[in-house]
Amino acid sequence: MKHVLSAMVMNQPGVLAHISGMLASRAFNIESLAVGETEDPAFSRITFVVTGDDKVLDQVRKQLEKIVTVVKVVDYQNQDIVERDLMLIKVTATGGTRSEIREMVEVFRGKIVDIGEDHVIVEISGSEGKLTAFINLMRPYGIIEMVRTGRVALSRASALSIESALQPPPAYEEAVING
Amino acid sequence: MKHVLSAMVMNQPGVLAHISGMLASRAFNIESLAVGETEDPAFSRITFVVTGDDKVLDQVRKQLEKIVTVVKVVDYQNQDIVERDLMLIKVTATGGTRSEIREMVEVFRGKIVDIGEDHVIVEISGSEGKLTAFINLMRPYGIIEMVRTGRVALSRASALSIESALQPPPAYEEAVING
Repeated sequence: MKHVLSAMVMNQPGVLAHISGMLASRAFNIESLAVGETEDPAFSRITFVVTGDDKVLDQVRKQLEKIVTVVKVVDYQNQDIVERDLMLIKVTATGGTRSEIREMVEVFRGKIVDIGEDHVIVEISGSEGKLTAFINLMRPYGIIEMVRTGRVALSRASALSIESALQPPPAYEEAVING
Repeated sequence: MKHVLSAMVMNQPGVLAHISGMLASRAFNIESLAVGETEDPAFSRITFVVTGDDKVLDQVRKQLEKIVTVVKVVDYQNQDIVERDLMLIKVTATGGTRSEIREMVEVFRGKIVDIGEDHVIVEISGSEGKLTAFINLMRPYGIIEMVRTGRVALSRASALSIESALQPPPAYEEAVING
């Protein structure tokens, strides 16, 4: 089962090594991972997509939360979320194919961010399916190189803000944890 | 000095733990890091931004390349690159402020991807400066939560494609390496 997890962590050296080490020791392969700044410079937010057994992943999530520098971990499984992945893709483009590529970029609401004599660089964001569809369309032209950010996500409803993460869990959660 | 590094790695458990462990042991703080798929499912590409002493970073780069699962590392310092960061930001928005926020989103060429009773979620991509400017504009409305992918980059000229990474270095580079 594929899971999108989001961890609020303190912005210190070693946090990522700790987290990725724990995942590796359980043989979880990280499909994508993104570490970015938050509204507070003292904290970073790590979003990662892993595939693995649900029960084992739940144990890992609990263990991650025991790391001192990890403030909170949320599993977005079964939540209504907005998720996005950003890709830069450099494709072979010459006189004849440049306008064809441009049309497809427009349909996908991407942007051409660089044009060279024999290539274009396209910026495109969206769901995993959308990016995969665009990659497949570009293959016949010749993909020179590409880079993706990995997915980030926000829940449409509840918040994993720094404030709420620092607050103690509500009473019913504490009851479950303690008992 | 701030460096944007790009590493082509084999898609296996433990690679990220190895890399982040090495950076942590040298006390390099990772400002942002993005692990994403590439055009070849056997490889991932890790883009990371670190701040540290230039000489030490060069040593780290060489050590990273010695890891069996790391195919190639490129430092984008002094290269002409396209770099992008993607952000999802949830901002408090009610009847009165929603249209104000919408106007700013348009100026920044962002997209409103979710509207709730009391909030909007905005997707915006661009350089670090652009995202910071947008965050500062949103602060007065109330940032509920945000997540960023961290930067990814592509060189405008030379390529770090999987093919070129797997090829031996050109003769002049070998001469330098061998002495």
